Parts: sequence; structure tokens; C-alpha cells
Amino acid sequence: MKYKLLKKETTSGARLGLIETAHGNINTPIFMPVGTRGSVKAMNPEELKNLGAEIILGNTYHLNLRPGIGIISNAGGLHKFMGWDRPILTDSGGYQVFSLTRLRKMHKDGVEFASHIDGKRFFLGPKESMAIQKDLGSDIVMAFDECTPYPCSYEVAQKSLEVTLRWEKISREQNLQKHQNLFGIVQGSVYRDLREKSAKELTEIDFDGYSIGGLSVGEPEKLMFQTLDWVTPILPENKPRYLMGVGTPKQIIESIARGVDMFDCVMPTRLARHGTAFVGAGATVPVKAGRYSNDFTPIEPGCQCYACRNFTKAYIRHLLNVGEILGMRLLTTHNLYYFLNLIKQIRESIKGGYFLELREKFNAEI
Amino acid sequence: MKYKLLKKETTSGARLGLIETAHGNINTPIFMPVGTRGSVKAMNPEELKNLGAEIILGNTYHLNLRPGIGIISNAGGLHKFMGWDRPILTDSGGYQVFSLTRLRKMHKDGVEFASHIDGKRFFLGPKESMAIQKDLGSDIVMAFDECTPYPCSYEVAQKSLEVTLRWEKISREQNLQKHQNLFGIVQGSVYRDLREKSAKELTEIDFDGYSIGGLSVGEPEKLMFQTLDWVTPILPENKPRYLMGVGTPKQIIESIARGVDMFDCVMPTRLARHGTAFVGAGATVPVKAGRYSNDFTPIEPGCQCYACRNFTKAYIRHLLNVGEILGMRLLTTHNLYYFLNLIKQIRESIKGGYFLELREKFNAEI
Repeated sequence: MKYKLLKKETTSGARLGLIETAHGNINTPIFMPVGTRGSVKAMNPEELKNLGAEIILGNTYHLNLRPGIGIISNAGGLHKFMGWDRPILTDSGGYQVFSLTRLRKMHKDGVEFASHIDGKRFFLGPKESMAIQKDLGSDIVMAFDECTPYPCSYEVAQKSLEVTLRWEKISREQNLQKHQNLFGIVQGSVYRDLREKSAKELTEIDFDGYSIGGLSVGEPEKLMFQTLDWVTPILPENKPRYLMGVGTPKQIIESIARGVDMFDCVMPTRLARHGTAFVGAGATVPVKAGRYSNDFTPIEPGCQCYACRNFTKAYIRHLLNVGEILGMRLLTTHNLYYFLNLIKQIRESIKGGYFLELREKFNAEI
Repeated sequence: MKYKLLKKETTSGARLGLIETAHGNINTPIFMPVGTRGSVKAMNPEELKNLGAEIILGNTYHLNLRPGIGIISNAGGLHKFMGWDRPILTDSGGYQVFSLTRLRKMHKDGVEFASHIDGKRFFLGPKESMAIQKDLGSDIVMAFDECTPYPCSYEVAQKSLEVTLRWEKISREQNLQKHQNLFGIVQGSVYRDLREKSAKELTEIDFDGYSIGGLSVGEPEKLMFQTLDWVTPILPENKPRYLMGVGTPKQIIESIARGVDMFDCVMPTRLARHGTAFVGAGATVPVKAGRYSNDFTPIEPGCQCYACRNFTKAYIRHLLNVGEILGMRLLTTHNLYYFLNLIKQIRESIKGGYFLELREKFNAEI
């Protein structure tokens, strides 16, 4: 993988970059739609390409449970299995082991846990996670870490960071496919010295890129931005930075201003299935609400997505109200278009030198 | 509406025709995907067009309950409401009143019933049904009838037919939009004299086309074909014939051999959502079954649909197994392609003079 830093704003930390992978290029800043179980919910690969998605996410924990890594391996990897020939990033499974499973036992080399589906027992550690992600064949692989919750005491965060750092070193030592790249994950909860220690030690290990984890887990937004202010200046400038699981349009812009390059979030797809659309500077429209039953305007007038070019709120509201799949499809299309178009506008604003104006506009309107 | 009989087979009753409507032409024999609540389940209008759908169905009963005819009327009719500019056929609502509602009271001029959704009371008779369908603006409107169940005693069928004939006369007297066309519906259960009486009296009323109802309600297949053998010879040759709610690929071919021109059925879309695909001469493949988890071939090798060109059974099986919407979408795409391609092949076989060979092939392979 090659990361080229194309431009750095002088008035903020915003960066314009290009990541080259074996499955194609990624323009950063980038938003990555989430395809947890080998499908970006409600969408097909052709539609994702038409929306301009350059990279999507897959989930090690979920894919390893169903269909199982054996089947994906037999298919020739996740790209072939799901019919997606552009870049894929996979997480390590650590986050899900700690958030989804209740029965788990910590060991030195990983976690023993019971599947959230059928209670079947599994063991996942850095070696196992790397082996699975090697078979998945994703272009960007995440090191295996422990994600601390919020709030989290200093002692717990400190102990967790030690475990995480050891697991990340082990992750780095594992063998991956030639085209694959490994990202380390900065942890340390909301404690400055832990975050700084994490960022410094990971930089020494030398990963292909750096993720920032343990944020967007319930902490106040200010603490998220504060943590980024501590971390990004320490990370090497010649490697991409990925803020995991973030976020709202405003959070994305504010994080880009602090030097983050990559984002993923289930928000556009999940809120779509619940009947909510993103518009303007990040406002949400509850399209399913009864007040739109006679509203014959598009979700967002002027929006160029398939849903807004062809259908009214009244129709989409009806579809959502009676549970028609097309309703979820149309809102998902609009919301992904919104996020991918937002990130494109941000890239253009950095290129054109007017990122700060865009940032102010988004902060003013909310 | 203009119906042109383009060709009539000499060795069977199969007919090739063209229906001209204000929203475009329909080549017959035709299969019409069902869009009960203003959406052919899981599909968008663009995909339906790409699959070659020339006309779709809408459902008066369901659309009148939700979103309500007022909203569709405000939208400017069903075409505009759902973004479909090709022909639409709407049923009269009679079938659903009798099949879906438990609380109902027969009156001379219609049926009082409680909505299957919230129990709210409604009244539907020929006048109400025509008024609703006028507002829906469908190109082909169905007369309001009572659909007899199977089995049904002669006495009940006879009495029901009398009611139906009176309601159909009243339907004919109602005012529709200029571009709309009204079909009468032949009833009479499985009794020859009742079916013949129905067909003759409807022909005298002179409708724009003739539906055959009360079949595919649980009767043996032979009785369905027998009934068609009684009815179609009586119907005028210069009007299209529509067999409501039918059916399997074999039933469609056998009905075409008996002079039927139009079909609708929820089977391709409903079975798709349950994980079943149509292949070959009408065989079904339970793609959701575990035995396909490692099957990396398409649903139907050689099939030119989007699902078969891009995805394996193993992937689609996984999607269905974990409940991903894309799984239902891909199977729906395949099944609709199968039915629309089948009817296209049948049209070509009538044109080319080899319909009987195709019919034999389908009967032999099942």
C-alpha cells in the first residue's frame, strides 16, 4: 500500500491524500460504507459503485460466525464471495467480542467467548484474527485490540492498553497476503498520557496506517475531539489515519480538521432502515412520520440521488409505513449518497482551499 | 384501449396480440408482476423496466386502506405516486374483502367489512370500487365481483354468480377516466353451466377485456384447465383474456394453449423472499438450504439476470441465512427475470410457429 499526502491545510489539520491498493485507489478523506456480513445493507455492489463508494468494510467477527471463514476461503476471499472488486477494510473482531458477547474469558493470547447467535464457543486473539483476515483477503487489515467502554477508570484503561499493545505487536508479526496492509489501533480511553503512549508505541512498531479506536462509545463529543487533538499530532504524517465508527456529518468534518483521513459508520444505513434521512448540514428528516403523508416533494430538493430524482416523501413514507423493502432501499440510497457526497465536497474544499468555510457552514447550520 | 389479435395458433388456442394503452403497449401473452401496495416487492421501477416488465398490478383494497385513496389522488394517481409510467392494472378489491377480512356483512350494493389492519369499518361495492380505481387512474380496471372459494356448492356458486353479474353491470355503468378500460370477470366456480352463463352475459355487456376469476383457489389443476376449456371459446376473439392469480410456469403455458393472454401471480416475488428460485422448466431450487453453502455456481448457469451474472448460490444462501435484504432482492430479480423471460420465449414460439414444441418440453421436464 502506498499513501500519498497530496495536500495539507495550513489553517487546520485537514489533509488530502491518495491510498493505492491492489484493488484500486482511495481518495482521502474517505467515507467507507459498512458491509458487516458481506453486504452493505439493502444495496448491491453496482449501486455502491454508482454512488461513488471507493472502499467498504467487512466484519471479521460476524463473517467468521456466518457463513464461516471456510466458505469465504473456498470462494477465493471476501472480494470474490460478495462480488466487490474495489478495496475492502476488515476490522479485527475485537470490538464485537467485547460488545456483543456476554460470556467471555480473557486469556493471555486472546478471548474465549460464546457466539451471540447460538452460544457456540470460539477463541479469538491476534493470531486467530490475522489468520481469518488473511483468508478474507481484505486490503486493509486491523490489528486485534480491546476496545474500552465509556466511562472507564484510569486503572482499567491502563491495563487494557497494555494488553492491546501486546496483541498489536503479535498482530504485526503474523503473516498476511502480499497485497494486504495492517493498521494499528490507538486506544487509551480519554486519558491523555495513555493515548500518547499508545500512539508513540504503535508508531515505533511501524504499521501501514493508524486507526483511532475507543471513541464514539458514548463519551461527550468534546472529549472525542480532545482525544484527536492529542493523538493525531503524534502519528506519522506519511500514513493514513482512520477514526473507527465515526460519525455524524459534523463529527466527520471536525475530525478531518484534526487530521483524520478515513471514516466508517453504520449511521446512514441504519437510520435509513428506521425511516430517517440526512439532509443539509447534517439535519435529519423522520420520513416515516405521518406529517409527510401528503408531502409530494423529494427528501431533499436538488439532491441528485436516485430516490430524490424519482420519488416523493409521501411515497417513501407510505413504503416505510407498510414495511415495503423499497422504502428502506430508497432511504439507504439517499443517506449513502449524502455521506459520500459530503466527503467528496470536503475533498474538493481542501483542494480548493475553502475547507474552513465549509466547516463553518456546517457548524453554523446545526 | 385497442387490442390487436396478431396471430392465432392453428394447433392450439395460443394467441399473439398487442394491447395499446395510454401508458404504452403490452405484448400478449404477458406476465404482470404484482405491486400490491404500490411497489413490486423489493424492486424499483428502473429494475422492473430493465427486466422487461410492460405492465404491473396494483391492489385497490390495500391501497385504499394505506396510504388511502386521498393521498394517491393528491399525488395525481398511482402512476405518479409510485413513479411508474408504463401501464397499470388494478383489481377491484373484491377478492381481498372475501379472503382477508373476517368481519363482513353482505348488502345488496356491496360489502361492509372491517380492515384486516386495524378493524376500521369500510364499505366496498361496485360503485365504490370504480370510484377508487378511477382515482388510481389505472389503465385496466377490474369490475367488482365476489370470488367463490373452492370447494363451493352449486347453490352457493349460483347465488354468488347472480350477485357478481349484477355488480359487474353496475361497474360498467360507472364513469371512469377516458384512458381507462374495464374488464369483466367470469365467475361460476367449477360448474360448466354457471361459467358459460357468466361468460355469455359478460360478453353481452361488452367489456374491454375479460378476466377469468375464481381459479387457482385450491382446486385441482385439471379442473382449472377444464374450466378454461369451457370459458375461452365463448369469449369474444377481439378482446384480451386475463387469468387472475395464475400461476406456475406449466399452468401459464397450458392456459396460453387454451387462449389466455394475460397473467399475474405473486409466486416469483413471494417465493423469492422465502429463498426459493425458479429454474429450467419450472423446477424450484431452495437456495436457502444448507446444501448450497459451498456451491459457487449461479442459481441457474447461463441465466442472464443480474443475480446469475454476478453472484453464486453460496453467497445468496448466506445473505438469505443471515436475513440480508440483498438476498431477497437477488432472488426476486432472478424469479421475475425467469417469468418475464418465459413469457417472452412463449411469444416468440407462437410467432415462430413452435409453441407446441415448447409446451411439450415444459410438460416433459416437470
